[in-house]
Amino acid sequence: MSRFLSEEAGRLAPYTPGEQPRDQQYVKLNTNESPFPPSPRVLEAIARETQLNLYSDPTCAQLTEAIAKWYGLAPENVLTGNGSDEILAFAFRAFCGTGKGVAYADVTYSFYRSQVALFGLDATVIPLREDFSLRVEDYLDFPGTVVIANPNAPTGMAIPPSDIRRLLEANRERVVIVDEAYVDFGGESCVPLIPEFDNLLVVQTMSKSRSLAGGRIGFAMGSPELIAGLNRVKYSFNPYNVNRLSIVAGAAAMEDEEYFQSCCAAICRTRARTTEQLQALGFTVLPSRTNFVFAKSDRLSGEALYRGLKEQGVLVRWWAGGSRIGDYLRITIGSDEQMAVLTDRIARLLKQS
Amino acid sequence: MSRFLSEEAGRLAPYTPGEQPRDQQYVKLNTNESPFPPSPRVLEAIARETQLNLYSDPTCAQLTEAIAKWYGLAPENVLTGNGSDEILAFAFRAFCGTGKGVAYADVTYSFYRSQVALFGLDATVIPLREDFSLRVEDYLDFPGTVVIANPNAPTGMAIPPSDIRRLLEANRERVVIVDEAYVDFGGESCVPLIPEFDNLLVVQTMSKSRSLAGGRIGFAMGSPELIAGLNRVKYSFNPYNVNRLSIVAGAAAMEDEEYFQSCCAAICRTRARTTEQLQALGFTVLPSRTNFVFAKSDRLSGEALYRGLKEQGVLVRWWAGGSRIGDYLRITIGSDEQMAVLTDRIARLLKQS
Repeated sequence: MSRFLSEEAGRLAPYTPGEQPRDQQYVKLNTNESPFPPSPRVLEAIARETQLNLYSDPTCAQLTEAIAKWYGLAPENVLTGNGSDEILAFAFRAFCGTGKGVAYADVTYSFYRSQVALFGLDATVIPLREDFSLRVEDYLDFPGTVVIANPNAPTGMAIPPSDIRRLLEANRERVVIVDEAYVDFGGESCVPLIPEFDNLLVVQTMSKSRSLAGGRIGFAMGSPELIAGLNRVKYSFNPYNVNRLSIVAGAAAMEDEEYFQSCCAAICRTRARTTEQLQALGFTVLPSRTNFVFAKSDRLSGEALYRGLKEQGVLVRWWAGGSRIGDYLRITIGSDEQMAVLTDRIARLLKQS
Repeated sequence: MSRFLSEEAGRLAPYTPGEQPRDQQYVKLNTNESPFPPSPRVLEAIARETQLNLYSDPTCAQLTEAIAKWYGLAPENVLTGNGSDEILAFAFRAFCGTGKGVAYADVTYSFYRSQVALFGLDATVIPLREDFSLRVEDYLDFPGTVVIANPNAPTGMAIPPSDIRRLLEANRERVVIVDEAYVDFGGESCVPLIPEFDNLLVVQTMSKSRSLAGGRIGFAMGSPELIAGLNRVKYSFNPYNVNRLSIVAGAAAMEDEEYFQSCCAAICRTRARTTEQLQALGFTVLPSRTNFVFAKSDRLSGEALYRGLKEQGVLVRWWAGGSRIGDYLRITIGSDEQMAVLTDRIARLLKQS
């Protein structure tokens, strides 16, 4: 460890992003990107934004207003950030700390763990059931902040908003953060619960369903009280956190309803087809409400599949370390063409085995 | 205070950005933006970057390579961020903490104070001399991390790299962070000291001299050891921290040497002219190596000037609270036309007084 590092920096648990290789053209199904470009209106809005010598609006009013309008909320219910990872970091700092621990599932977005280490939080990790479903009863009595990815990653499985409602009602003094990064692919959002519960924070992203992973736009929705808490952290960390291009890109993406709906519908159709094909190849595929599937073969290990596919130019996500998900692959739903390559390569690997 | 906030969030000291009014067209000389648009090559690069559905490269290789090339460094010497505020936050977390306090001047970039509160750091605030010059001897024995804005904001004054060298040599176990946000307007960079000192971190931004405040691009340069420390924090906080558009915009800005030099030269010429005009109006103007001047009138208070100018459509930065800088204004150097409006409006206010 470097002599220059603070004790706190020494204790960090940095996140490992999915591979972003620059050496070869892969069929890239490892980071849950959309196979579709952003709406043409997004590119038009970017081309019109030329005043880059001026700071962006720190309140991101144009973007928060577009999001609020889409969800039928007020702008005071919305905060935007440089991707939802930043929003999550703001939320972990705002609502967790001394005497306020955090609970989340054993199999979920692994970045939560990095943020727990960043802020030195007490984390309670609660195992999912054997079938990877979440038992909401396990969280009812937890006194600190609860974080639930819904639908969950990397399992793809969802719980109904009625379960989230039970968590919110069980203790109105604690914050429940629902990470809805993947909700637009068949999940059911908890946003309609916001007017009723001032302890609910919903976090979403434009990286998946709005085809803007490269634009880095995340947002939180909740009571004005929770949004004010996030702003305290934002203005202590990076007041101008969303740049001018992302502000106009995100607003344009929210306004092109038709394009958004058609992209999400296409992903859901391809997901159904891919699921059937994987099942026909002997895979167990968890029921997905996301733009990926979480699946394991009845014949090849997760590692063998991951490595074999990579050799054949197809990248999927696999978690090393022999945990309970070690035989699963997380496979992004790409275009029909990409998924045809995937299933073809898997079939080859199975034949060779 | 909200019942949902953590103790730590309750103790924050959020930064107040310069006013960004949306209600009126101001001559805006309050946030040190460039009056010039970004290089045409920047807009071309943005127009070519349409694959926004894909994540940005978390290592920002294209951008770090362009910066490294310009400075004659290796890519391992460079880290890029979502504005230099984010970079500073990474540095405060990486190199300050338990047993590692931080020292900075009483009159300097006020955001350091926000970051001290964010990470709960021990801060030692060292007064500048009466004439706002920095006495490097005051920092020689400080055992923790030293942060020096050079040139300083809001004073605009600079110290020579030989002074920074003394700090670096005095204690090679401690990190010295030199915030060179304004260095391109006549300051002298400490980057040439990097190969000699592994404890030197230089932070810069494209917001001022590269006309990209709205693109949010900051960067740090230092030894691979320090850059690795920053990366630990970055990957714990927000791995994809620079979006695709900012990556290509920043790289293009570094490559247009001629445009960069001509913009900086124009600002320096206008600064000289504005300084003379303000002096002719009875102002004391501190010697500036930045794209702003820090000045006070011999007749009107800082508050009277700030309010009078705002009423007449000219925004400058003034710090309320009656501190030792309460009679000074920080005035951005804009275009010749903008500065003519400024001096005309000041002359009017002086006549009315």
